[in-house]
Amino acid sequence: MQHLQGTSYFIEIGDITQSSLETYIAKHYQQAKIVIIVDENTHDFCLEYLLTSFDCLKDAEVILLPAGEENKVMEVCFQVWEALTEYGIGRNDLILNLGGGVVTDMGGFIASVYKRGVDFIHIPTSLLGMVDASIGGKTGIDLGVYKNQLGVFNHPKAIFIDPIFLATLPDDEKRNGYAEMLKHGLIADKGHWERIKDKTVEQITIQDIADSVGIKFSIVEQDPNEKNSRKTLNFGHTIGHAIEGYLLEREPISHGYAVAMGMLVEAGISLDEQKITEIEFDEIKSVICKNFKQIAFEKEEIAIIVAIMRNDKKNELNKINFSLLNKIGSCEINCFFEGKQLIQKFNYLN
Amino acid sequence: MQHLQGTSYFIEIGDITQSSLETYIAKHYQQAKIVIIVDENTHDFCLEYLLTSFDCLKDAEVILLPAGEENKVMEVCFQVWEALTEYGIGRNDLILNLGGGVVTDMGGFIASVYKRGVDFIHIPTSLLGMVDASIGGKTGIDLGVYKNQLGVFNHPKAIFIDPIFLATLPDDEKRNGYAEMLKHGLIADKGHWERIKDKTVEQITIQDIADSVGIKFSIVEQDPNEKNSRKTLNFGHTIGHAIEGYLLEREPISHGYAVAMGMLVEAGISLDEQKITEIEFDEIKSVICKNFKQIAFEKEEIAIIVAIMRNDKKNELNKINFSLLNKIGSCEINCFFEGKQLIQKFNYLN
Repeated sequence: MQHLQGTSYFIEIGDITQSSLETYIAKHYQQAKIVIIVDENTHDFCLEYLLTSFDCLKDAEVILLPAGEENKVMEVCFQVWEALTEYGIGRNDLILNLGGGVVTDMGGFIASVYKRGVDFIHIPTSLLGMVDASIGGKTGIDLGVYKNQLGVFNHPKAIFIDPIFLATLPDDEKRNGYAEMLKHGLIADKGHWERIKDKTVEQITIQDIADSVGIKFSIVEQDPNEKNSRKTLNFGHTIGHAIEGYLLEREPISHGYAVAMGMLVEAGISLDEQKITEIEFDEIKSVICKNFKQIAFEKEEIAIIVAIMRNDKKNELNKINFSLLNKIGSCEINCFFEGKQLIQKFNYLN
Repeated sequence: MQHLQGTSYFIEIGDITQSSLETYIAKHYQQAKIVIIVDENTHDFCLEYLLTSFDCLKDAEVILLPAGEENKVMEVCFQVWEALTEYGIGRNDLILNLGGGVVTDMGGFIASVYKRGVDFIHIPTSLLGMVDASIGGKTGIDLGVYKNQLGVFNHPKAIFIDPIFLATLPDDEKRNGYAEMLKHGLIADKGHWERIKDKTVEQITIQDIADSVGIKFSIVEQDPNEKNSRKTLNFGHTIGHAIEGYLLEREPISHGYAVAMGMLVEAGISLDEQKITEIEFDEIKSVICKNFKQIAFEKEEIAIIVAIMRNDKKNELNKINFSLLNKIGSCEINCFFEGKQLIQKFNYLN
C-alpha cells in the first residue's frame, strides 16, 4: 500500500480491501448515511466487489448516473440533488464516487454544492480517473461545448486507487488514461516517459500508475489554485479540450484521445517556437501516432475549434494560453497566442 | 466611511461615491471585463445611479435576473452561465452583484461556480442584503421547498453598503431586513436590541445599520465554516426557513417575515426550556407582533413544515438543530429536538 499525504486529504494506492477505507469510515462516519454514486458501467462491474468487501457500505444508498461525457451536465446533477434531498442526506454524511473521470468530476461537484458541501471520497475505476481526474480537487461539469465550464475547486477527503478495477476495462479505454500518463512524463519526468513510452497499455504496472499519481499529486500540492506550476498539467489540453468540446455534440471522442491530438499539435507549436528539437518532436509524434488515431479537420471545423479555445478558462486579455514543452520532461507555462496564429498548427494532425 | 477588514475581503459602509470602489477596480481589474448582475427592481431604481457615478463601469455588461425568491433557482443560473460564456467572461474578470439578498446569494453562487470561480463584489440594495445576506460568504439557491439547498461558501472581494439605495424601498421590504437586525440584537448585543426595538423602519439610522453589519461580520469572521458561534445566526431560521419554504410554492412571504415568525416560535421554545424568562419572552413577542403579521397554520400544514425541517442543513443524526436564546443578547447553539416535539410549539403563532 502506497500512501500520499496531502494537506487536506490522502491517497492510497494498492489493494482496496487492505486499505484504510473501513477504519476511516468507522472513525469519521460511523453514524453517517453513505451514498455511493456510480454510472451504468461501475454499477455492473465494480459495485458488487465494493459492497461485498466492505461491511460498512451494506446500508449505503446507491445513485446511478447515465454513463458518458455527454451526461456530465447540470440536468443530471439536478436529479442527484433531488435524490439526496429525498434520502435526507445531511451535511455530516458521506458521498462515495465510484467510477471514471465523469463520475468523480461530477460526483465531486454534486457533493461540493449540496448543502454548501458534504464530504466525499473518490474510488476511481478507470486509468484516467486513477492517474488524473480524481486527483487535484477540480470538480466540474460541461456547459454545451465548453468542458468543465462549471465547477469548484474542492478536494475529496480521500482517494483509494486499486488497479483491480482496471481488469474489466477495454484497452481502448485504458489508452485514455495512458495519454495523461505520457503527459506527466513529458511535462515533468523524463524517466517516467522513458519507462512507459514503448509499453502497450496491458504492460502498465501498478508502479507506473503510482509514479504517474505521484507526479500529478506533487504538482497540485505545490500550486493548488493553478497560479503557476499547476498550469503545466494543461499541456495538450488547450487544443485537446477544444477538440473534445467540438466533437461532443457531433461524434464524441474520449478525453485521452482528444488530449493526445492536443499534445501532438502543442508539441508541434513547441517545435515551431524552437523550444524542443526536431528529434524530440519526432519521438513524441511516433509514440502518440502509434497509440492514438488522429483526425484531420476541415478548415471550417478548425475555425470553430479555435473559437472554442477563445473561451478557455486559462486565457488572459483575449489571448489563448498554452503550456508548451521546453524539452522532454519540462514544461513552460503562459505562452500566449492569437487565435489566428493557431489555424495552420492543425496541420500537425495530418 | 466605515471600513471593516476581513481575512479575505473588506466592507465599506457609507456614500458609495466616496468609497474605494473606483480605485479598487482600477487597481485589480483595469483590463478585466465587468458584468453587473441586477434584478428587475435594481435595474430600474439603482443601476443608473451606479453607472453615472462610476466611469469604470460604463462598458460593463448588464445581466438582468427576474426578481423574487421564486426565481432563486438553477434554471436562472444556467441562463446566466450561458450569457457569461457568450460574453467571453474569463477567470480574471469581475462580477458585480447589485441587488437584495436574492441577487447577492444567487450572483455569488453563479460567480463561484463559473469556470471554477471568478471574483465578485456585492453592492446590496435592500436592508436585508446590507445587514445580512451579503455578509458571510454564504452563496446559494433554492431546490424546491428547500431554501439555499445548493450553494458554496465563498466570499466576495468587497462589499459596499450605501443606505442611499434604501430610499426607493417600501417600508414593508425594509421590515424584512429589520427582522435580521432584531435577531442580531437578540443573539449577541442587548444594547443594539434596545436601541432599535421601538423604532419604526424609517427611524433606522446608518449607525444602526453599521452596528448590525458589525455584529454579523464579527460572528462570521470568528467561525467562517459554521462549526460553532456562527450557528447563533440561525436563531429563528430553523422554523423560519421551513415556513418560508412551505409557503414558497403556495403564497410566498418575505424572508424577514418568515424569520420573525421563526423567532417568535423559537423564543417560545427558549421559554419552555427555561432559558429565558416570561418577561423577556413577552418583550420579544410584543416587538415582533407589532411589526410582523403572524400566520396561524392548520395541523396538516404544521406537519409538512416540520417535515421540511427534518432536511435542515444543520441537523445531526436525524434530530433537528436549533439555536435558542439564553437571555436577550445571548444565544445557545446545538439544541436538538425530535420533529414530534415541535408540533405544539406552533401555538406560539396564535
